[in-house]
Amino acid sequence: MSKNLTSRAEDYSKWYNELVVKADLAENSAVRGCMVIKPYGYAIWEKMQAELDRMFKETGHQNAYFPLFVPKSLFEAEEKNAEGFAKECAVVTHYRLQNDPDNEGKLRVDPEAKLEEELVVRPTSEAIIWNTYKGWIQSYRDLPILINQWANVVRWEMRTRLFLRTAEFLWQEGHTAHATKKEALVEAELMNNVYADFAENFMAIPVIKGVKTESERFAGALETYCIEALMQDGKALQAGTSHFLGQNFAKAFDVKFTNNEGKLDYVWATSWGVSTRLMGALIMTHSDDKGLVLPPNLAPSQVVIVPIYKTNEQLEIITEKANSIIADLKVKGVSCKFDSRTTHRPGAKFAQHELQGVPLRIAIGPKDLENGTIELARRDTLTKEIVNMPDLISKIDSLLKTIQEELFTKALNFRDAHITEVDDFETFKKVLVTKTGFISAHWDGTTETELKIKELTKATIRCIPSDAKNEEGKCVFTGDSSSRRVLFAKAY
Amino acid sequence: MSKNLTSRAEDYSKWYNELVVKADLAENSAVRGCMVIKPYGYAIWEKMQAELDRMFKETGHQNAYFPLFVPKSLFEAEEKNAEGFAKECAVVTHYRLQNDPDNEGKLRVDPEAKLEEELVVRPTSEAIIWNTYKGWIQSYRDLPILINQWANVVRWEMRTRLFLRTAEFLWQEGHTAHATKKEALVEAELMNNVYADFAENFMAIPVIKGVKTESERFAGALETYCIEALMQDGKALQAGTSHFLGQNFAKAFDVKFTNNEGKLDYVWATSWGVSTRLMGALIMTHSDDKGLVLPPNLAPSQVVIVPIYKTNEQLEIITEKANSIIADLKVKGVSCKFDSRTTHRPGAKFAQHELQGVPLRIAIGPKDLENGTIELARRDTLTKEIVNMPDLISKIDSLLKTIQEELFTKALNFRDAHITEVDDFETFKKVLVTKTGFISAHWDGTTETELKIKELTKATIRCIPSDAKNEEGKCVFTGDSSSRRVLFAKAY
Repeated sequence: MSKNLTSRAEDYSKWYNELVVKADLAENSAVRGCMVIKPYGYAIWEKMQAELDRMFKETGHQNAYFPLFVPKSLFEAEEKNAEGFAKECAVVTHYRLQNDPDNEGKLRVDPEAKLEEELVVRPTSEAIIWNTYKGWIQSYRDLPILINQWANVVRWEMRTRLFLRTAEFLWQEGHTAHATKKEALVEAELMNNVYADFAENFMAIPVIKGVKTESERFAGALETYCIEALMQDGKALQAGTSHFLGQNFAKAFDVKFTNNEGKLDYVWATSWGVSTRLMGALIMTHSDDKGLVLPPNLAPSQVVIVPIYKTNEQLEIITEKANSIIADLKVKGVSCKFDSRTTHRPGAKFAQHELQGVPLRIAIGPKDLENGTIELARRDTLTKEIVNMPDLISKIDSLLKTIQEELFTKALNFRDAHITEVDDFETFKKVLVTKTGFISAHWDGTTETELKIKELTKATIRCIPSDAKNEEGKCVFTGDSSSRRVLFAKAY
Repeated sequence: MSKNLTSRAEDYSKWYNELVVKADLAENSAVRGCMVIKPYGYAIWEKMQAELDRMFKETGHQNAYFPLFVPKSLFEAEEKNAEGFAKECAVVTHYRLQNDPDNEGKLRVDPEAKLEEELVVRPTSEAIIWNTYKGWIQSYRDLPILINQWANVVRWEMRTRLFLRTAEFLWQEGHTAHATKKEALVEAELMNNVYADFAENFMAIPVIKGVKTESERFAGALETYCIEALMQDGKALQAGTSHFLGQNFAKAFDVKFTNNEGKLDYVWATSWGVSTRLMGALIMTHSDDKGLVLPPNLAPSQVVIVPIYKTNEQLEIITEKANSIIADLKVKGVSCKFDSRTTHRPGAKFAQHELQGVPLRIAIGPKDLENGTIELARRDTLTKEIVNMPDLISKIDSLLKTIQEELFTKALNFRDAHITEVDDFETFKKVLVTKTGFISAHWDGTTETELKIKELTKATIRCIPSDAKNEEGKCVFTGDSSSRRVLFAKAY
């Protein structure tokens, strides 16, 4: 199977699309732009969900669920947000189908079942949630509200790609309400830090923390914190965002509270989210021409055992050994699968597990049992070693930690090697084509310049890094003065 | 707070509605028929999800995710299913809004962004899933497919009630594909047994297993297995269903496979689901006039500690003790919350935890610390006892098990006391009004009789119980011969 995968060098985009399908992660569906997330892909997403959910709860958040639909009148209440999403929203206009008199056996929309008010399928839930919060908040005692929702959302994108940009996607959206501006700002930054921690320490994806420029902000936000990752083709990918919404939604939905001085004020808001897009980031950060490479934290099975046998008697002895290994690994918290399928030969199994990125593979044959050794293969480095049976469990345990760390280091080195400081526009354009990656350059701070650069190069400002030093300089495009560098890149 | 709750005797329906809102489980939203599931309610749902998910995986199922939308042409492919859901489905017809020229600041549907084919918001996913399975199944080697999906679905119900019947609800839907009829039947029955096990042993809700009559079956099913519970007002509630779909969907979507004899055949199917409706069943099975009563398995916090103090010094000592209790309980796997809010008095806290059904409540005051005793209050029986400090942890641990068991037994006794064998129609009508509950009666097996009885009494056949004995008798309505009793009831 894996030999059919297009190489990254040949066609990166094709490599990605093929990998997603061949590794059984997802596929396109009969609905334009909507994907089917297959069991193997969904199992990885579930691991992300579990860890994020744990982190959210640890930071004091609770889950809840709000309606899929947003009545048009609520949708349009916060102007900027409405403007931002109006062009790409699915709209429910009717609530019934009926037999089509002109087409036997077919159905049509029942013209008499037209909704009085159209319903927008949520592209994001600020509107419906802030309309709800209005009923929950009277006094500072009701604050803060720290809620997260796991949900599907719909944005009618015209050009879609599996995981990276789909009409429907799965995500979590946090929506918090606070008594003070400061508290909301702290929350927005805290959640961006949670995302960075998750990306780096769980997904092994190095990210740069920063804030968006005005033109790249979430529609309706006053500040958008973000984490930006770099893919192997040198394009950036926004992996998560956390928004300080100010009092915009509170004003749009008239959500006031009595503060501890007895005065009425509008509530301060944040929202933050990551989505199944992270699956795309995962794939494009670690995988290779042989297929998926999974950090052990995200692998549905961290180890797979493939039996090599000719007789049923041999299989029986191998099975016994495999079960004992699985039990020992379970104690260590390591998941291990025994691939005992009789419908596939060992070679085909090896290829499949390589394609699907199982971090460690064990092959056990009669000879291994005789010698008291086992062959252990690492997916990330494609290396093999012979391990003495008694050392196996501790070897696997430590190797999984090593793999997790080394994948991060490898991605970090790649990312750091692809940040180029540039001070003139000719070099800027050249680096974008030859070296790709992030360009660290001075910018005059105007949206006009930003858009002009985008028009000329397709590169956008990915973020103003949080750790950017004050440094006097001149805008790479206009030559106007600037006090710190920002990061440009072409992006997904 | 609790004194404001309408009593069950006064108005059962009002009691239910008030309880759902006052206990902070859910509330109505701005979208007709759609609810907001609040954090406390959602935390209970998460506990159900976690346990069901574990049971599904233990029986070999994997999770996946399929699109929210079903193109009209797929929706109508399986005739009976289409007919069953056409009258209550939300339909997306457009994919964009634009500024309304007649109404400044308002949006309207962009008439130029009309979809070529309407999209139905899934009321259930057989159509989109079987259209997908077509691409996954060629040979018997690809079978069985055992997939579950956690998702939201929409059915445009005209009369809605929180949790029991809402336009959008959350559920899981299993969709499996098999090589033989027998295997599919075994699967459908297995999953009904999983539901029964879950309802009884986790939710403490006794259920009757059986199959539906033809007129009560899922649209498109050949057999619908179900579990039926009895609520405290004597009405039945269908708590879960598992459908044997035969080859209906395989035929509608042309899903054939080569069997192990090399012959082409249509694939056999099942589907099965439970939903947030279970929250309604939970509430109506165990709760009382003081509020929610939660089985310990489903309680977000199984124990709550309320400090009784006058000075900060007292609070400090109590807090120390509380933290030590929480740590000790955690070791036992018991969740315990310390309600240290300074904004509420102990009395108000007691009332809230009673209303929200926390199984055990501990009050700690300075006197208790002096005496080395603690007051432990049971929510279900509303009884209190004084426990010696050293016995507290083991006492709580065993008491939670006792509560779980006793809630089940209590509900079982109530249910069994409300199954009445009836042999004539006058008694049938009378029992429905006076005693309520299930009526076990002979039925002639015709849909005509079933519908006539429904018309006259509003009672439907809830199920033909799996354990019904062969017993010669006469139909309670027509007097025609019958060979076993079925269960009638008014139902939610």
